[in-house]
Amino acid sequence: MRIGELSQRSGVPIPTIKYYLRERLLGPGTATAANQADYGEDHVRRLRLIRALLEVGGVSVATARDVIDSLGRTDVQPHDLLGIAHHAVMPARRPDRGTAAWARARAEAERFAATRGWHVDPRTIAFDQLADVLDAVRSLDVTEILDNLDAYADRAQEVARFEVESVIERRDPVRMLELVVLGTVLGEALFGALRLLAHEHESALQLGEAAPLRGEFPKFPTELAT
Amino acid sequence: MRIGELSQRSGVPIPTIKYYLRERLLGPGTATAANQADYGEDHVRRLRLIRALLEVGGVSVATARDVIDSLGRTDVQPHDLLGIAHHAVMPARRPDRGTAAWARARAEAERFAATRGWHVDPRTIAFDQLADVLDAVRSLDVTEILDNLDAYADRAQEVARFEVESVIERRDPVRMLELVVLGTVLGEALFGALRLLAHEHESALQLGEAAPLRGEFPKFPTELAT
Repeated sequence: MRIGELSQRSGVPIPTIKYYLRERLLGPGTATAANQADYGEDHVRRLRLIRALLEVGGVSVATARDVIDSLGRTDVQPHDLLGIAHHAVMPARRPDRGTAAWARARAEAERFAATRGWHVDPRTIAFDQLADVLDAVRSLDVTEILDNLDAYADRAQEVARFEVESVIERRDPVRMLELVVLGTVLGEALFGALRLLAHEHESALQLGEAAPLRGEFPKFPTELAT
Repeated sequence: MRIGELSQRSGVPIPTIKYYLRERLLGPGTATAANQADYGEDHVRRLRLIRALLEVGGVSVATARDVIDSLGRTDVQPHDLLGIAHHAVMPARRPDRGTAAWARARAEAERFAATRGWHVDPRTIAFDQLADVLDAVRSLDVTEILDNLDAYADRAQEVARFEVESVIERRDPVRMLELVVLGTVLGEALFGALRLLAHEHESALQLGEAAPLRGEFPKFPTELAT
């Protein structure tokens, strides 16, 4: 199909498709004339993947390219793949990690994993992200958040458990690759959306509000204190 | 203090501080001369908050400004505050929400909340985010992820429950405001980091690997199938 039809089929505007081609997120079509190319079903599917990563997963263009490259390769090391998936769900900007406070937070993150008996490579970047949060929580003086650290970790481990089980159940290695990467990105967005919905429900519930009427909102706890 | 000292105290470079001043993320200092201003402890604390939102939370500059504005106001409606906090943890880019498939996913999201007995306003933007994920999962044909939908929702509700409890325990309304907004943003980053660490541990555990030796990585499940 021509680029016009590709745009129509995928819902992605032509200039955006051209941008993805330039950024090598999308592979080139088959050249049919000087300024024309033919695109196939793979391109439609790839465009859906790009949009999901960028818009649902909130992934940067550079990281999306890494993710997409990894899906097409058979030589990628399993651990690298997990690393790529993990990079994809981390914020693009990084805080200053050169401070003494951050180094303490990093050590604290490793100790925490050890107390839970988690077998994790000390170099894994998820430790850096945990250290970012611990450091921010302390510097902003909202350490109440850490009162729930074990409760967070219990639920995170349960989620990770069924996610990993779900990958292991696949027998097709290509499908496993897809599920590791997309499951990491989309699973995060899915859990995030459900957590926000549950916030609204729990705040109504814990304050003993009845079911909200049409057009009414469940009250939020701050109303109690004002 | 002068801007140089503010930069040193906060670890934020002077040009970045000037950018935050221009973008009204940071309030102006007290003018002391034509081209000079004096900054206080509030500015140091505010800079920490800005960095945490942008770099740990992955929040956009425009959303960070909304969040920061909301913290300084006493007239903000509680529900608006929850909305602002929720906006802050959503990806800045939005997928195409005008398609028939997306409308179906949106209706599915509302039905799912109803089957769980969640009292949530049907207009809440978290429904849009859930619909984004449902739509992406179907268009990418990774519906295995939805086999765990109830399992995700159970854990999300447990997390939301202790988070809301933790806010309700506060008696000071200013502190509650802070905890709603920062708890939403930092809680998401915290859970995300723990989930990634637990992925690594669970994949080692479920494959029956021993504790990894120094320099060795736990095996990742894809190795089984290749």
